[in-house]
Amino acid sequence: MGIRLVQQDILRQLSFDIFAATGIPEDDARIVSDHLVNSLLAGHDSHGVWFVPGYARAMKKAYVTWDERQVVRENASLVIIDGKGANGIVAVTRALDLAVEKARNSTFGFVGLRNVSHIGRLGDYPPRIARDGMIGMVWLNGGGLFMAPHGSADRRLRPEPIAFAAPRREGPPFMLDMTMTVVAGGKIEQKIVRGEPLPEGWVIDQEGNYVTDGEGYRDQSTGVLPLGGLQFGHKGHGLAMMVEMLVGPLSHAGCTKGNRGGNGIMVLAIDIESFTDLDTYVEEVEGLASWVCSARPLPGVNKVYAPGEIEEETRQRRLVEGIEIPEATWQQIGEVASELGVALPAVESPY
Amino acid sequence: MGIRLVQQDILRQLSFDIFAATGIPEDDARIVSDHLVNSLLAGHDSHGVWFVPGYARAMKKAYVTWDERQVVRENASLVIIDGKGANGIVAVTRALDLAVEKARNSTFGFVGLRNVSHIGRLGDYPPRIARDGMIGMVWLNGGGLFMAPHGSADRRLRPEPIAFAAPRREGPPFMLDMTMTVVAGGKIEQKIVRGEPLPEGWVIDQEGNYVTDGEGYRDQSTGVLPLGGLQFGHKGHGLAMMVEMLVGPLSHAGCTKGNRGGNGIMVLAIDIESFTDLDTYVEEVEGLASWVCSARPLPGVNKVYAPGEIEEETRQRRLVEGIEIPEATWQQIGEVASELGVALPAVESPY
Repeated sequence: MGIRLVQQDILRQLSFDIFAATGIPEDDARIVSDHLVNSLLAGHDSHGVWFVPGYARAMKKAYVTWDERQVVRENASLVIIDGKGANGIVAVTRALDLAVEKARNSTFGFVGLRNVSHIGRLGDYPPRIARDGMIGMVWLNGGGLFMAPHGSADRRLRPEPIAFAAPRREGPPFMLDMTMTVVAGGKIEQKIVRGEPLPEGWVIDQEGNYVTDGEGYRDQSTGVLPLGGLQFGHKGHGLAMMVEMLVGPLSHAGCTKGNRGGNGIMVLAIDIESFTDLDTYVEEVEGLASWVCSARPLPGVNKVYAPGEIEEETRQRRLVEGIEIPEATWQQIGEVASELGVALPAVESPY
Repeated sequence: MGIRLVQQDILRQLSFDIFAATGIPEDDARIVSDHLVNSLLAGHDSHGVWFVPGYARAMKKAYVTWDERQVVRENASLVIIDGKGANGIVAVTRALDLAVEKARNSTFGFVGLRNVSHIGRLGDYPPRIARDGMIGMVWLNGGGLFMAPHGSADRRLRPEPIAFAAPRREGPPFMLDMTMTVVAGGKIEQKIVRGEPLPEGWVIDQEGNYVTDGEGYRDQSTGVLPLGGLQFGHKGHGLAMMVEMLVGPLSHAGCTKGNRGGNGIMVLAIDIESFTDLDTYVEEVEGLASWVCSARPLPGVNKVYAPGEIEEETRQRRLVEGIEIPEATWQQIGEVASELGVALPAVESPY
């Protein structure tokens, strides 16, 4: 089908126009379109503009604004919010400001969220807290029931992803965004869609053997290994349960118990200046990063990265070179644009 | 050399008598002896009574009490303490109460600690916070410079261990205690001492090959892989840097930069009842554990455990059967007892 090279500002405007044309508030349309294009810039194509058609049709059908939310509980350090089905990307973006405000007054600021739609890419959020001079975290107890606990192939946990950010001296914050499975579901889906075998070490069957065929992932007969794999998977399994035990009950979403599973979000801001000077903080973490990244790379390895640096390299490159969009995705965006009366911008032909 | 089977109460009394005979406060002697014997009961022999001779001789030579500590910074949610070289096990034990007290009033209670001696087994501490109806964490940015960052074999990070606990309906709390390396240093040392090869997947050389000979671990020419190993080690590496960025600067110990590395401790208590009813919390996490642990075990696997359950099984067994102490350790404890005028209790001969 080919690839189309599109500049990020064109994608941003087009996504915004499509979302705005569904009738949602313009601020919300801006937040969601920026989120998707920023994910693409960071290299996370699985969280990019291929969501535009699905998001837009869902928005057109029904849309709940952040104003509909209900505060379930609140004190100086925390607020727990039932989103009543609000847009997830808008909800988490708004929650960042609430968490920062709480932390400014109380050192720790916690926002618990439940009942919101898809929240997109976790790693997008904590850096915004870090830009306010704080440590930021966004953890989700959820993400699709496919993790096998250590010692089993049955699906009992979700990837339970966490994202973390801390301020740097210059440029974008340090940023860690990871699941407690060996790989995220999106990477497995990508392999299957491309017809490639799953690498050994990703998925096991009931005998505990690695499965390289994607069929069992799709029909749910295989389980994705926790971080650490067959040898050290008790660690990934333990971390996954820690995420559940923190995020599920404290957000009032509850923990997973199969299909009855809760799906909550924890936004946490930690006010660095309550602990130490921000300059001292930054000096320490930059010193750490210099020391760690000065390690000699193994043969075939380009360099040792600090968390977030690979995403920033990709962003700088894609800002200049544009972003490769599969022609199928471009066509699907074209269809939804046409449904909503939005003109497609002229971009070069696919190659 | 053989093994001696010793009952836990005898070990507890003997360790206490030895520490008390060094002249340290009786409360402190009790805290340290209980800590070591409780680690043995939990099955963590690497953190058990083999520390008694070294600890006792160090106490005899010089001992700093918790009273010597200096509060560096304090607000409603946090206190940062310079231990001035205080005993680490006593310091962290005291810090638990401070964290709980802060959390009772402010939802989150943080104690940062630096300049304390060896803190023993991390997993001993958070369950004490959980017994007060809170979520407990104790994280350490430290533990010996042997982790290679992802893509390198150079030693640039420490195991950066974390411990976490949450209350259960009955019995001891859920408890996770793990390093961000594939294995803890103690497990590598045990293999080397026994003359066993290191399993593949633990340690690599500068070519990125697994090394099964322990020599390179001792002479520091090899690096221990981060959790995730060669394939997914960016996750363990990222988690390790997250621990450093949280614990180092916030405890005022600083981050590691090689030998100039800081070594700090974070004690965090989160007051569950600020978020939700404790009963609701416990119902959720017990429901999670039932669901996860009902997964069918793989061939050769006994059962799927929740964090802390293996330790509790070992504790129940050792309370009844006694604890196996290597004769060499028993002899060394005998020597230090004799130096301090403490009578060795009669226990059965080694077998």
